[in-house]
Amino acid sequence: MKIKHYLLTLFLLLTTQVYLSAKALNSWKNGSSKQAIIEFVETAVDPENDGFIPESERIAVFDNDGTLWAEKPLYFQALFAFDQIRSMAPEHPEWQTEEPYASILKGDIEGALHDGEEALIKLVLASHSGMTTKGFQDMVGDWLASATHPTTGRAYTEMVYQPMLELLDYLRANNFKTFIVSGGGIDFMRVFSEAVYGIPPEQVIGSRVRADYTLVDGEPVFHRKAELGFINDKAGKPVGILEHIGRRPVMAFGNSDGDFQMLEWVTAGEGPRLGLLVHHTDEKREWAYDRESHVGSLNRGLDEAAERDWILVDMKKDWRRVFPR
Amino acid sequence: MKIKHYLLTLFLLLTTQVYLSAKALNSWKNGSSKQAIIEFVETAVDPENDGFIPESERIAVFDNDGTLWAEKPLYFQALFAFDQIRSMAPEHPEWQTEEPYASILKGDIEGALHDGEEALIKLVLASHSGMTTKGFQDMVGDWLASATHPTTGRAYTEMVYQPMLELLDYLRANNFKTFIVSGGGIDFMRVFSEAVYGIPPEQVIGSRVRADYTLVDGEPVFHRKAELGFINDKAGKPVGILEHIGRRPVMAFGNSDGDFQMLEWVTAGEGPRLGLLVHHTDEKREWAYDRESHVGSLNRGLDEAAERDWILVDMKKDWRRVFPR
Repeated sequence: MKIKHYLLTLFLLLTTQVYLSAKALNSWKNGSSKQAIIEFVETAVDPENDGFIPESERIAVFDNDGTLWAEKPLYFQALFAFDQIRSMAPEHPEWQTEEPYASILKGDIEGALHDGEEALIKLVLASHSGMTTKGFQDMVGDWLASATHPTTGRAYTEMVYQPMLELLDYLRANNFKTFIVSGGGIDFMRVFSEAVYGIPPEQVIGSRVRADYTLVDGEPVFHRKAELGFINDKAGKPVGILEHIGRRPVMAFGNSDGDFQMLEWVTAGEGPRLGLLVHHTDEKREWAYDRESHVGSLNRGLDEAAERDWILVDMKKDWRRVFPR
Repeated sequence: MKIKHYLLTLFLLLTTQVYLSAKALNSWKNGSSKQAIIEFVETAVDPENDGFIPESERIAVFDNDGTLWAEKPLYFQALFAFDQIRSMAPEHPEWQTEEPYASILKGDIEGALHDGEEALIKLVLASHSGMTTKGFQDMVGDWLASATHPTTGRAYTEMVYQPMLELLDYLRANNFKTFIVSGGGIDFMRVFSEAVYGIPPEQVIGSRVRADYTLVDGEPVFHRKAELGFINDKAGKPVGILEHIGRRPVMAFGNSDGDFQMLEWVTAGEGPRLGLLVHHTDEKREWAYDRESHVGSLNRGLDEAAERDWILVDMKKDWRRVFPR
């Protein structure tokens, strides 16, 4: 009787395990990408395997824009910045003639960003500072609750990739800690990371402006300054990871050359490592872009993925579905 | 039969709970400090209580020097810096005449620190930069494994406070996340935080030098620069917490005015909050110091603890034992 009970339990455990693995990544088509992920995880959690990874070392890092959610026609945080610039304009009459603000107010986004990253930083700093952290996060929350994507009409928080949500869940079910490591603003992403991705604020790493701690009428607040504190992009990503996490992750997920050094550092470590780039190939369900795109451009990663044994996810072929609905 | 079994389980669960609470803080004497901690935690985990705190919000922050381990005769990291200065001296003949190095090499620590914090920062930068992060952490590990405290002869990692180790365990058993938030160097503390305190590197916040990500012979490394990146002290502590954790903790533990703003911010939040200062009153088992001390000086905290409802731990009266052995 006891042995029968034991065998039944064992059987249920084993079948549950297999069922979970197969079901967990349901929006991934069966193929080499899905298989490589499952093999990596099943090896990592098996204490009998040479590729076993102790729980404390099971750290997976994810870029956000283009990896966890969409980034077309432009980074969503930039679209938020433009909306803020428009609503702040009445208090800044000088913006009617001063670039890049004037172009934004005329609705000419291409003109505003003509000079590249510098203009974008200027717009972000103008719209992301001068208030308290709490005030800023309320602004982001309000915007996310009401703004919709210019072509799909969906809420921005619905423009997340279903296969990646399943991947996050699958990794956490196997005791991996999941972190966001993005060029996006840390306080911007923290507003929705827990609700949308299940990633708590303390596991979000991003770019940031400087903030001062002060008392206003006896109440402690953080005042956001129009000054960059850290840019968490390219070679800044490994530095951001080192500052926040303090050790080398074993899995890294990205989609652009901004993620190159993150994948390079993660996969150069000893023992089992996994690097993965999402290649945007699906012009019907999402967008198709890589080398020439002004957001998420992917050149070096595309050239070197194979020789570096990084998984190159073909969205069109590898994903059964892109968005949750 | 089924009901009997259910009642037995319930009985075991309840008695285990009580047993744990009473046993968990065994090195704390029964008294108002211990009682306030236990009451706070038992309220926080009780979903029926108004003071219930959801797991994701259960965040407790701890200063390190003087709160988790000793800091006399001087911050242990400063003693490490002096030892490194001595061992690096042969490559720096100029240090024989240049201050503050010359005083350190003569064994005159008071002379070296005569000009205060600036000299200390100079010594720390000289001894903590110019190598890779890995190289630095190896240096720290070697030092911790061999160096001993000048008066007790113990390893530095044995100069930790047993009551605080029990408190860390007790909080984690109740699903609090425990973080170190210290003026000490982040990469210094991360070498021993997991082994000694059970706090993983991603939950350590500290001061830091700037580091660059580069490739050396194709290998990714972080090169440490002789440049301060962030000082995690006083009003810097709330800023460090905001950057790393992204939300306000509910419990804060410190011992000096360097922790004042951290406790101020934490305890000014809505809902249940606990602030605690360790007051060093035990000249026999440890050291007795506060207002006039050149390390861990406690003035404002001592004056305002009562009106702010912060627990002031009297080491002599509140702790049954100080060190693990």
